[in-house]
Amino acid sequence: MEIDRNGLEVLDRAECIRLLCQGRLGRVAVSAGALPTILPVNYWTDGRSIYVRTGIGSKLDAALHDAVVAFEVDDFDKLEHAGWSVVVTGIAREVTAAAELSRLRHEPLARWAPSADGHVIAISIELVSGRRLREMPTPVG
Amino acid sequence: MEIDRNGLEVLDRAECIRLLCQGRLGRVAVSAGALPTILPVNYWTDGRSIYVRTGIGSKLDAALHDAVVAFEVDDFDKLEHAGWSVVVTGIAREVTAAAELSRLRHEPLARWAPSADGHVIAISIELVSGRRLREMPTPVG
Repeated sequence: MEIDRNGLEVLDRAECIRLLCQGRLGRVAVSAGALPTILPVNYWTDGRSIYVRTGIGSKLDAALHDAVVAFEVDDFDKLEHAGWSVVVTGIAREVTAAAELSRLRHEPLARWAPSADGHVIAISIELVSGRRLREMPTPVG
Repeated sequence: MEIDRNGLEVLDRAECIRLLCQGRLGRVAVSAGALPTILPVNYWTDGRSIYVRTGIGSKLDAALHDAVVAFEVDDFDKLEHAGWSVVVTGIAREVTAAAELSRLRHEPLARWAPSADGHVIAISIELVSGRRLREMPTPVG
C-alpha cells in the first residue's frame, strides 16, 4: 500500500474508477465570470467519461464546453473522520451524437436541480487520483 | 423564498454563513501545475474567513497563497436527494500574525490528512452563494 507525504493511502486508477462508478453526486470546479466556483452535480460514469446533465444556458453549461475541468467525488464518515476522495481532471464536451445520447438515455443520469431540460456533458477521465484516510486528523494545539 | 432558474431555493448570505459554521469538511478548487483540481479539507470558520491547515510544501499549500479560490460545503441526503450547497469565493492568504494564530489554537482546526505540521490558511468570505434542493431531480428518458 502506497502512503503519500501527508499520510494518506494512495488509490490506484482501478480503485478510483471503481469508487467513481459507485457514486451519484460529485462536484465540478469551473470558472464562472473569471472566478473559480464549485458546483454539485449528479453524474453517471462508464469508467471512461463522467456524464453530467446541465441546464441550457446555465453557469455550469457555459463552463463545461471544451474546458479542462476538475471533478471530485468523496465519501466521509463524519463521526470516524475516515473516508476517501477521488479527483478526475479531464476535458468537458457536449454530447451531441444521437447514438451516444440514445445510449445514455438508459442510464440513471439525473440533474441535481429539478428543471428537466438540458445538455449532456461528458468529462473524459484523463488524470485520476484518489486518497483514502483511515485515521483521525490531528487537531491543532 | 427565492427560486433560481434551475428550481433551486436561493439561500441568503446569513443562511449560507450559518450553514458554513455547522460544517467541518469542505472542498477547495485550486490549480496545481496549471490544471484544476479539487481537494477535501477540514476547516473552521468565524463567519468572516474560512481557516484551513495545510502541509508545508504540499500541493494545497502552494495553491493557497494569495490566490483566488473557491471553497464549497454541502450536505445531501443520499436517499431523499435533498440537501444544500454553499460556495465561497475568496482570497487565500497564510496566517502568520501571532495573535491570530494564537486565537485559532483554541478552535477545532484539524487537517484532513494525519500529518501534523503545516501552515494555517485563511480564505476571506468575499462572495458567498448557496442553494437548497428539496425535490427529487428529474431523471432522463
